[in-house]
Amino acid sequence: MRRKDFLKTGGLLIASSLFNTCRGKVQKEKEYKTGEGSVKVSTIIYELQLRQAWTLSRGTWNTRRNVLVRLEKDGIVAYGESAPIPRYNESAESNREFIQRALPVLEKDLWEYQDRWRELEALAPGQNAAKAALDMAILDWVGKSLRIPLYRFFGLDRNRTLPTTFSIGIDTVEVMQKTAQSAPAFRRLKIKAGVADDKKHIEGLRQVTDRPLVVDANEGWKDRQQALEMINWMAERGVEFVEQPMSADNLEDHRWLKERVKIPIMADESVHKIQDVPALASAFHGINVKLMKCGGLQEALRLVAVARAHGLKLMIGCMIESSLAIAAAATLTPLFDYADLDGNILINNDPFRGLTLEGDRWLLPDKPGLGVEPVIPEW
Amino acid sequence: MRRKDFLKTGGLLIASSLFNTCRGKVQKEKEYKTGEGSVKVSTIIYELQLRQAWTLSRGTWNTRRNVLVRLEKDGIVAYGESAPIPRYNESAESNREFIQRALPVLEKDLWEYQDRWRELEALAPGQNAAKAALDMAILDWVGKSLRIPLYRFFGLDRNRTLPTTFSIGIDTVEVMQKTAQSAPAFRRLKIKAGVADDKKHIEGLRQVTDRPLVVDANEGWKDRQQALEMINWMAERGVEFVEQPMSADNLEDHRWLKERVKIPIMADESVHKIQDVPALASAFHGINVKLMKCGGLQEALRLVAVARAHGLKLMIGCMIESSLAIAAAATLTPLFDYADLDGNILINNDPFRGLTLEGDRWLLPDKPGLGVEPVIPEW
Repeated sequence: MRRKDFLKTGGLLIASSLFNTCRGKVQKEKEYKTGEGSVKVSTIIYELQLRQAWTLSRGTWNTRRNVLVRLEKDGIVAYGESAPIPRYNESAESNREFIQRALPVLEKDLWEYQDRWRELEALAPGQNAAKAALDMAILDWVGKSLRIPLYRFFGLDRNRTLPTTFSIGIDTVEVMQKTAQSAPAFRRLKIKAGVADDKKHIEGLRQVTDRPLVVDANEGWKDRQQALEMINWMAERGVEFVEQPMSADNLEDHRWLKERVKIPIMADESVHKIQDVPALASAFHGINVKLMKCGGLQEALRLVAVARAHGLKLMIGCMIESSLAIAAAATLTPLFDYADLDGNILINNDPFRGLTLEGDRWLLPDKPGLGVEPVIPEW
Repeated sequence: MRRKDFLKTGGLLIASSLFNTCRGKVQKEKEYKTGEGSVKVSTIIYELQLRQAWTLSRGTWNTRRNVLVRLEKDGIVAYGESAPIPRYNESAESNREFIQRALPVLEKDLWEYQDRWRELEALAPGQNAAKAALDMAILDWVGKSLRIPLYRFFGLDRNRTLPTTFSIGIDTVEVMQKTAQSAPAFRRLKIKAGVADDKKHIEGLRQVTDRPLVVDANEGWKDRQQALEMINWMAERGVEFVEQPMSADNLEDHRWLKERVKIPIMADESVHKIQDVPALASAFHGINVKLMKCGGLQEALRLVAVARAHGLKLMIGCMIESSLAIAAAATLTPLFDYADLDGNILINNDPFRGLTLEGDRWLLPDKPGLGVEPVIPEW
């Protein structure tokens, strides 16, 4: 099935072709943009298939629909990925709509990547996953144009990438135990929490593993007394830190909590951009930076500076993502204290290849740009 | 006159040769490092000759002794400059001593420039001008290795560099008037203040020019009442902002002042590194970033992120510097609100060439790295 639409947008001719194919569990839709400008952009809405149902405090998913971007300019082909976050009113469609609106920005000089990011940011509020995808593609393009890997472009040591935690979604104790046992290479496990059975889950996991745990409550605890009690209970059971105990905008109760907890609390849903950091520095011990929340690699680097200025701990996290976006985030891990970059491990139809695990540490490809290549036919 | 000493330092053979020559007003001393490693570093203590006596609230100078660094690795020759700041216990000699201590860091992989900066920072506290010189040389080397100008490496638009102010040191009213009239291309003048005759100086300047002024008090005003009275008096005479009204560590009185002044106040001596910014965000409207204070281009970029996170205005300033260090700072101006980069205009024996003024705006060389070349014989 193939449908073509030609739209005139901002003086650019856009050819849109949508179709579905089935290759195992791959479902895709395509859209091409070619035109008078020198840049070609195409996007795929790609359905990532989770190996097992993925339950957080706010819902359950079996698939996630991400947008993959292919950008071609001056003979260089670069890639980006958005993992839209429903919590912030994003979907694959709204991300893709943003990308279409951004075409005039991509027509400009990609070397001036700082200006391009500011223009993307000014285009519309939110849709940060789409901004992250474009920023990623632009920097992949810059690295490939220079013929150097992005870790080198950023002045980082490929041998200093961090180990990643392995995430265990909310499930029955038995399934959570099995998941923990299925991933012996990971020295640190991340447990999703924020539901009624949190203690049962931790106790169950402690029956099968003594590895350090980190916990992500995803705003699930309803008040500060409950959060304090849970966190200090977890502290005695080998939990190293807890992410986002309560509602993102409730800085006051997190401030109260910070003074009382025995282990650090990290902001996740509370932090997006650099401007969020000063206010939450007194409410958390650290922040979780995600490309999809902040809008890309450039803003992530700025967040590192701002967090360090405030003496905050830094972790880098992810959504359910292919190894393209994971490679981008893994590139920055030498600047962080913790990495939670396992989104691509949780899926069974990764559309990119080139990023490999060495134990629980991502080995960055020693190729230009992000160094990963798509395994999608006809793209 | 020539003297050679051979020192064994950290396993590296260092050949030190000191001599003076006279080429116009050039005085130089040389030192070479060659050794078992693949990097060659040499430094010159270079006496910059001021066109006219340079008086600030804290002293008068006719010359300034800067350290020029030449770094050669893999056939690429790169340059750095330190303008030691006596206010922070720096001299050309102490800067050079730091550079000698840093040789083992420079022996390592320069592509991992973020790690190298952290290692320089960890080597010793202070001596930030020396750190800036090495960071500058490393990034000049990276840019030249990639065969791209540093503005491109940083993703910036060469056409968006800022105009620079032109600085007028403290002198008789007549000399200050003449200096202002001698620089008609500069749309904004910077007046040094913080002395008893400040009002007389401003009134004198207003007799000969109606251009906007900015004022740098260099911590010269003794109490907040005096500072408030002076600043609001200046506000009515076309002064756009005032730098560092009072003592650097007196944040409390600057906080008091911030709530009362009619024009912005900018931190200069109060801010060095990113860690200084959170505390002073409530005491100033903006910060003056100088490579020699913060320790280089990388920290300057981080300061931009932190200042923006706090909603602070950003200016980039300089010391008395050659056009090498001015080119480095000018490269970053697209990220700033104001630039005060005229250190090389105030001297008559600039040891570098390639940076040119277009009106009052620096035109960045379109050459790899910083793009400027030394005009020093035998280096």
